[in-house]
Amino acid sequence: MATTTQTDPRIIFTPSGRRGRFPVGTTVLDAGRALGVDIDSVCGGRGLCGRCQVTPGIGSFPKHGITSAPDHLSEEGPLEGEYRRARGLAEGRRLSCTAVVRGDLLIDVPPESQVHRQVVRKGLDVRTFVVDPVVRLHYVVVPPAELARPGGDLARLFTELERDWGLSDLESDLGVIRALQPALERNGGRVTVAIHDGHAVIAVWPGLHERIFGVAVDVGSTTIAGHLADIADGAVLASSGVMNPQIRFGEDLMSRVSYAMLHDGGAAEMTRVVRDALTSLVAGLAASGGIDGSDILELAIVGNPIMHHLLLGIDPIPLGSAPFALATDRAVRTTAAEIELGGVNQGARVYVLPCIAGHVGADTAGVILAEEAHRAERVRLTVDVGTNAEIVLGTKDRLLAASSPTGPAFEGAQISAGQRAAPGAIERVRIDRATLEPRFRVIGSARWSDDPGFDAVERRIGVTGICGSGIVEVIAELFLAGIVTADGIVDGSLAARTPRIVRDGRTFSYVLHEPAGDGPRILITQNDVRAIQLAKAALYAGVRLLMDHLGVDEVDEIRLAGAFGSQIDLLHAMVLGLIPDCDLAAAAPAGNAAGTGALIALLSKAARAEIEMVVRTVEKIETAVEPRFQEHFVDAMALPHRTATYPHLRAAVELPTARTITDAGDAGRAERRRRRVVAAASREDR
Amino acid sequence: MATTTQTDPRIIFTPSGRRGRFPVGTTVLDAGRALGVDIDSVCGGRGLCGRCQVTPGIGSFPKHGITSAPDHLSEEGPLEGEYRRARGLAEGRRLSCTAVVRGDLLIDVPPESQVHRQVVRKGLDVRTFVVDPVVRLHYVVVPPAELARPGGDLARLFTELERDWGLSDLESDLGVIRALQPALERNGGRVTVAIHDGHAVIAVWPGLHERIFGVAVDVGSTTIAGHLADIADGAVLASSGVMNPQIRFGEDLMSRVSYAMLHDGGAAEMTRVVRDALTSLVAGLAASGGIDGSDILELAIVGNPIMHHLLLGIDPIPLGSAPFALATDRAVRTTAAEIELGGVNQGARVYVLPCIAGHVGADTAGVILAEEAHRAERVRLTVDVGTNAEIVLGTKDRLLAASSPTGPAFEGAQISAGQRAAPGAIERVRIDRATLEPRFRVIGSARWSDDPGFDAVERRIGVTGICGSGIVEVIAELFLAGIVTADGIVDGSLAARTPRIVRDGRTFSYVLHEPAGDGPRILITQNDVRAIQLAKAALYAGVRLLMDHLGVDEVDEIRLAGAFGSQIDLLHAMVLGLIPDCDLAAAAPAGNAAGTGALIALLSKAARAEIEMVVRTVEKIETAVEPRFQEHFVDAMALPHRTATYPHLRAAVELPTARTITDAGDAGRAERRRRRVVAAASREDR
Repeated sequence: MATTTQTDPRIIFTPSGRRGRFPVGTTVLDAGRALGVDIDSVCGGRGLCGRCQVTPGIGSFPKHGITSAPDHLSEEGPLEGEYRRARGLAEGRRLSCTAVVRGDLLIDVPPESQVHRQVVRKGLDVRTFVVDPVVRLHYVVVPPAELARPGGDLARLFTELERDWGLSDLESDLGVIRALQPALERNGGRVTVAIHDGHAVIAVWPGLHERIFGVAVDVGSTTIAGHLADIADGAVLASSGVMNPQIRFGEDLMSRVSYAMLHDGGAAEMTRVVRDALTSLVAGLAASGGIDGSDILELAIVGNPIMHHLLLGIDPIPLGSAPFALATDRAVRTTAAEIELGGVNQGARVYVLPCIAGHVGADTAGVILAEEAHRAERVRLTVDVGTNAEIVLGTKDRLLAASSPTGPAFEGAQISAGQRAAPGAIERVRIDRATLEPRFRVIGSARWSDDPGFDAVERRIGVTGICGSGIVEVIAELFLAGIVTADGIVDGSLAARTPRIVRDGRTFSYVLHEPAGDGPRILITQNDVRAIQLAKAALYAGVRLLMDHLGVDEVDEIRLAGAFGSQIDLLHAMVLGLIPDCDLAAAAPAGNAAGTGALIALLSKAARAEIEMVVRTVEKIETAVEPRFQEHFVDAMALPHRTATYPHLRAAVELPTARTITDAGDAGRAERRRRRVVAAASREDR
Repeated sequence: MATTTQTDPRIIFTPSGRRGRFPVGTTVLDAGRALGVDIDSVCGGRGLCGRCQVTPGIGSFPKHGITSAPDHLSEEGPLEGEYRRARGLAEGRRLSCTAVVRGDLLIDVPPESQVHRQVVRKGLDVRTFVVDPVVRLHYVVVPPAELARPGGDLARLFTELERDWGLSDLESDLGVIRALQPALERNGGRVTVAIHDGHAVIAVWPGLHERIFGVAVDVGSTTIAGHLADIADGAVLASSGVMNPQIRFGEDLMSRVSYAMLHDGGAAEMTRVVRDALTSLVAGLAASGGIDGSDILELAIVGNPIMHHLLLGIDPIPLGSAPFALATDRAVRTTAAEIELGGVNQGARVYVLPCIAGHVGADTAGVILAEEAHRAERVRLTVDVGTNAEIVLGTKDRLLAASSPTGPAFEGAQISAGQRAAPGAIERVRIDRATLEPRFRVIGSARWSDDPGFDAVERRIGVTGICGSGIVEVIAELFLAGIVTADGIVDGSLAARTPRIVRDGRTFSYVLHEPAGDGPRILITQNDVRAIQLAKAALYAGVRLLMDHLGVDEVDEIRLAGAFGSQIDLLHAMVLGLIPDCDLAAAAPAGNAAGTGALIALLSKAARAEIEMVVRTVEKIETAVEPRFQEHFVDAMALPHRTATYPHLRAAVELPTARTITDAGDAGRAERRRRRVVAAASREDR
């Protein structure tokens, strides 16, 4: 760049505020780059990609001390005109690579022209993050090889990348070396390359190639969910989920580990099927998004430790028994080829978020990243509820994590009428305090069961069972209506008041739904209540243990992540004592935060560095070796809790007076079951 | 390390001369490391590997100002005693990791205890290089995972590697993460890891693992040759060669390129067979060396550009036509898995030396490295003779390289009785100047054909043809005997003097061998002489072109590399004008220098950096675009040369007086053939 003088035009860029003087004839893009203004470009200033659009200000800007007149910028040239005709250019927009400085200018760089774009994700909390792409595209024109100037195609490519883009110390995949010559050949040396992390050339295309994509994946025990996103602007093109085909080797994590232990090659078989499923998921996302799989350059993956190990082909058996040692708690950087994922670019990279501990996986790292648990100003509890509950507690200054063995009750297993969340499953329940009559809603319809026309819903969708959020609500409602005591006993004495209380051997059940046609009768049994008590006590005990370690008696904020956590009603969860007392206005569901975390890591290099740092500083608490866990567990069996007073909850809803029914036999069974669970928790049965 | 005082014992290490004071109780290994003395260790000072042996000096060392008494070193302890009993320890040797400083000491570190060992390779030039291993072994004891201290196996390994070995910023192959847990399990956390280039953990073994190996390979068009070497000390355990199975797709390089052009998937097929052959070669080397293939951690590979591309799976077609563009002229670093080489450690790395230009490959880089062409004080010509001749000329200050299309005549093709070098092939010839009678020797026997008992050789081995070195000798001898003129005409007028000159249509042939039994009659025909003239003229013209570029009229030293170059007699080569005039004492064969170069690159990281730097600075001359090449070619058709005076040669042997036979028809044919060759050289027929 030529030396500037005090008479050269002044240029001010907004929103950055960067300013400088540049000689007449400088392109706006060059001026911006010289000042370090964040302006995107794929074609390197050739007027092809349109990424570098800016909006020149017109008029006097006293705050900045300049007047920006229309003739202070060169008129539209042939390149810009061609771009406008071919692809359109909004009113007032210019291509900064072709527009040339003639006088003082104020230049606005709109968000879509910045490399580091802010992406806003709306939820209860509006969260933003800045796209900071790990893979970027660079278009160059490579001169042909000449007899008199021998040298490799790759070296000539590197020379252009250094000259046009200032990229040095590059290396290249062998696959790129293979693909380079035909790509150069096809379009007169014009190629676009994808560069990973500023140093590795991982893909090459003939001509200008403008869009590349990434896939963020949450590999769950039940479901593998993915988002397909544009790597440059963070836009999500498609989201999809497929069943994890490993389910045929066992419903829950421990049964998968058992399968690996009992079958030679069992782990390898599970690795193969999950990789195949991931390949199918990616193919489906590409089809939905209308893109070519070869334009997928990167994947970011989260999963619990066992899914993490199985996907990466690491033996999961050590995770099945104490000390639950992870093979690695670092982020894993590998390639799609290495883990045999098909249907993506052959140079595609894979980033796997770090696991935190043997039961607290990369999915929890994703939750932390998405929910910014490590930036909380007040004490925040973040829970991802599944077969295990992953619990994160703390503030920006100190973060603790643990896993608690809730078991599958919250997912509808171990519940007499339980089922997965699917059309026909009861998901919302209310019980009249006076009549003890229920009303409910099923997934697939907005009608309540006492609305006119519900019989049509029953015929069309059916009432097939009860899902996790429905179970939580019905038991909370049974407690609020006085049908279930604080001890968790279904009060048989109420059978006199309502035919919905029915004897079932030595205990009583509540008839939630009597089918009109041939559907199932849906009962809430004493065992169902016990199963939920055990699950919620395990969760609460884990939370309480972290509160002890953090030295707090209450939490200020609550976020419930995961499918179940997003569906349950927070008030009912609190009535049940599934979560500790908290201002209900400060409690919120978080959706599939793990998947969102994977998406953020996919789109931001800075976020990867951030979560890797956070994971190292998180204090890992092992519930199994903490004697207090068992005490907290016993106290948490009562509804909502034996000792916790729940003042915020009591301000929101009237809790029944504590009332116990002495039933020695039943209490004895509960105690025996509690002991079994506690023993299991301190051993290895997770 | 504790602070030292002026009363602490003084320790002097030889041969480095490093010295310092250390508190009583310091181990000799720690003292050496603190001073930066090059002492090897795999076990990290645990008395297991025996790599750190030293020899304490006994007596007074006035030069160093100290007296080293036997009691200045601790007595043999239990670890050292156990090592001595189990594995033996030579007289006077101590394990420096267990021997502790008690007083002033002079400690000699023998060559075998140094990491950077000097390796001496004997040839005409005694060359040495220093082993500078890219892969090193490190033994550590990793504490077990604990419930109360969750964390990954990998992180615990890294912690120990940093603590014991000062290795930080490590990364790891996914394969190592997979193998780590069982390795830790097997031997109580004792593992040995292989670390590549100081930062990547590429293999892990349970317990102490002491030896790892590498394979250096020269992938030739005809033969693939390999050396198996101990990476730590550079010792070659086995060397072996296999035929390149690509021969079935075409004898020479151009026919392989044609195969790729004419057959869909042809290049991929050739890639597959050469990889399979390399896998077999490695398996054979491991078997010969008595080692396990999984202990092979690295390969270093050279080859001509087409072999290089085919092995790496890169399309070779662009190398078949102008501008002969290489896909890359950088060194390629990849993995054995990526190029599908089996039978080695799954983490094994591959280093492919850089190609220089489209016809000057990584094999020439290997020759330069082995022959140290880039360190020559005087002008040195280095030629690797094959179907193409790769020519390197220059000094340490300036190096030029080119390839010249000699064609396959030097390998026995295009010669009426020509054959590959194999038992029965004539390899040495002398012709009596007076009687014009020949004597010769065949491969497989030391007897000359006029020795008593040669008839037994003929019966046992046979006289089957003539190989490259034999052709060069016989034509040079025919010239010296006056049978072939300086123009290359077989002088028919001599038929009157000897029945060995026979008419063959319009030209004459020389009967080299008349079989006693049913073997073939071996003739040297006029066409044979022409074929060799064309080949040697192409070679000489290439050399002369580089001499022009370098601005010299003669060369001071000559090295002939490759199988043919090592077999031919240098005097005869000079008589023929195959090489320029030079003091015969300064000319020497160089053996398979390309393979030696691969071996050096295998064993030395510094050598890799060196050859990469040299290759970038080598001036590449493209003979096809140089008009002078054609002039030089015409001048070089004569024996030894039309204008060059060959003073050194004339001092060694009496050359016949220049004599020409006017044979217009024959001269016309020669001229037409010359034009074809020149045209081919400027096109693409290489």
